[in-house]
Amino acid sequence: MSRRSTRTIHVDLGSRSYDILIGQGLLDDIGNLVKPFTGRPRAVIVSEANVAPLYLDRVAASLRSSNLSTDTLVLPMKGEALKSWAGIRCITEWMLQVGIERNDLMIALGGGCLGDVAGFAAAVHRRGIGYVHVPTTLLAQIDSAVGGKTGINVKEGKNLVGAFHQPRLVVSDIAVLGTLPDRELRSGLGEVVKYGLIGDSQYFDWMERNASRISVENVECMHHLVSESCQIKTQLVVSDETERGRRSLLNLGHTFGHALECAYEYHPRLSHGESIAIGCMLALNLSVRLKLCDVQLLDRLERLLKSLGMKSRIGQIDMAMPSYERIWECMKQDKKVESEVIRFVLVRDIGDAFVSASVDPEDVRKVVERSMNGR
Amino acid sequence: MSRRSTRTIHVDLGSRSYDILIGQGLLDDIGNLVKPFTGRPRAVIVSEANVAPLYLDRVAASLRSSNLSTDTLVLPMKGEALKSWAGIRCITEWMLQVGIERNDLMIALGGGCLGDVAGFAAAVHRRGIGYVHVPTTLLAQIDSAVGGKTGINVKEGKNLVGAFHQPRLVVSDIAVLGTLPDRELRSGLGEVVKYGLIGDSQYFDWMERNASRISVENVECMHHLVSESCQIKTQLVVSDETERGRRSLLNLGHTFGHALECAYEYHPRLSHGESIAIGCMLALNLSVRLKLCDVQLLDRLERLLKSLGMKSRIGQIDMAMPSYERIWECMKQDKKVESEVIRFVLVRDIGDAFVSASVDPEDVRKVVERSMNGR
Repeated sequence: MSRRSTRTIHVDLGSRSYDILIGQGLLDDIGNLVKPFTGRPRAVIVSEANVAPLYLDRVAASLRSSNLSTDTLVLPMKGEALKSWAGIRCITEWMLQVGIERNDLMIALGGGCLGDVAGFAAAVHRRGIGYVHVPTTLLAQIDSAVGGKTGINVKEGKNLVGAFHQPRLVVSDIAVLGTLPDRELRSGLGEVVKYGLIGDSQYFDWMERNASRISVENVECMHHLVSESCQIKTQLVVSDETERGRRSLLNLGHTFGHALECAYEYHPRLSHGESIAIGCMLALNLSVRLKLCDVQLLDRLERLLKSLGMKSRIGQIDMAMPSYERIWECMKQDKKVESEVIRFVLVRDIGDAFVSASVDPEDVRKVVERSMNGR
Repeated sequence: MSRRSTRTIHVDLGSRSYDILIGQGLLDDIGNLVKPFTGRPRAVIVSEANVAPLYLDRVAASLRSSNLSTDTLVLPMKGEALKSWAGIRCITEWMLQVGIERNDLMIALGGGCLGDVAGFAAAVHRRGIGYVHVPTTLLAQIDSAVGGKTGINVKEGKNLVGAFHQPRLVVSDIAVLGTLPDRELRSGLGEVVKYGLIGDSQYFDWMERNASRISVENVECMHHLVSESCQIKTQLVVSDETERGRRSLLNLGHTFGHALECAYEYHPRLSHGESIAIGCMLALNLSVRLKLCDVQLLDRLERLLKSLGMKSRIGQIDMAMPSYERIWECMKQDKKVESEVIRFVLVRDIGDAFVSASVDPEDVRKVVERSMNGR
């Protein structure tokens, strides 16, 4: 795949519009790509310990070759621990120390958690500066780097403190996915499968046909996955930037998935994507139980997850299981709760999802308990 | 003055528009006033220890009489200490504990610091909820409650972390100013004088004529001060919401004033308004030095401050004086710094202020050192 095959997806949000670039080898071109967004010849990089040794030098070199001066911060935390009050303080204090001004640009180089906390820091540093996402995991490329949701976790739950703050640009270099551990790939695939369900049957069919070919080495597959997923997410974000309506379809599997992450105390052995995959199964199970959806779609999803090497039920999670009551409590703390009514994204068919605020808690209990028993 | 004389100033910011209500006895009507902005019959109150004993019961009673359920948080910190990471964490954690959802409304009842931190909490709680300002000091009514600037202080300087987040409504009850300590009145008057300089000569003339009548008991004076000041601020906010241009005229006296607050380590004996008054004198002094402005305006300002019982020079501050170098260092850390150039609002005449990024640091030193020597 040549450099020329870079795909541009435009996120049309008026004065907050931006492009998502998806291609190969883009890291070495970062300097040229971000230069139009800098107020003075300067851009700082915020990265994380797992990513910096692999890519930081290349990004910094590209900035310098475009005559942009730079400073870099490598955060000491990992994963969800980045998304904390400590993380946001660390970034904002550093930006003040190195003198980041209002028109300066920050580049967030890392996975989804790094992007979320760095984006939040950009949102609140001097009441908002510009930033560019350079996502280095599949999950970040297809999900968190798109749409401007930033934030941190607090003890009451995930993403409960944050801001909507759109990036100026997203640069997704498919080549970086080649170094991704298998586990990280699977974590991304949880969201990919979700896009398959809310997108269109063509994309879902493609996944079913290509499941065995999907690997980090298969650049063509990765390019297709990232492009199609970003396209689906962008359509929903553009129609509803702050999630008052259609954007909430992106939460398919998330009421369940977030509750699982919370109930398992964000244990690193249960990744976000794995939780979402199981959450999608639960949402489909609930839809089938409510006679909204044919059981064959549930079977197709389970087969697809299996062929991607992913878990589909709570009982398959290799850790001490929390009680149902604990999972339910976590669900009630979800951001999407309104008037204490939990909202679920339900599915009639591929490409036909909707939000329901009138699910009987007993039905929820039944499908969760079934999943806990591995059925 | 009757209830009918409530004045409404509309802040026209498209989908973020809101009204500022200025009147007497409005506290007892809060329930009716905020009801249109609640997603469900519920509104929570965030207040502070100095204010809650005076007004919290009345506000809560008004909410209940409008069939709105409520919870209240009274923050334990005072003054600038409210505007801290501890303050923002305290509010957001409490809101999560009492189950504040996305469409719920928060009422910020207190002075400017309380409003700034509560507004910031509203900006980041679940990525943004609605809030209503009920400012209880003159300074808050004329300045911080208008325009959507929220934030906290960090060790590097004031307001360096925050968000633009417009309230849904501002309710300024002039009657609450009657309990204001004299010192708090004077703190507000610093900003009032600033509005006189950037507004129009009619308002400045009115201040000169009425300086001796201005007291917290004079309801008519207070109503005029708050209305005129809000009107001037609103015009600038509407023309430039996120301060990329004209809004920055509101920073007259602030580059100096903030630096003084910082250099005196936010000591409670130097209030924000006092710093701003001295800052306005410095800005005018600088303008005179640069031959932009007639020295007679400087003399008028000094006489006005004196007749309001306010300090006009650094040398009058009753504390150990910081070095000029320390003050300069604080100035360089200002949010308005761009490309390491400090921007000053200078004045040609009343109603004719502008921003300059080309002031010679030697001129700054001269006027600050003169003010330090009490001249």
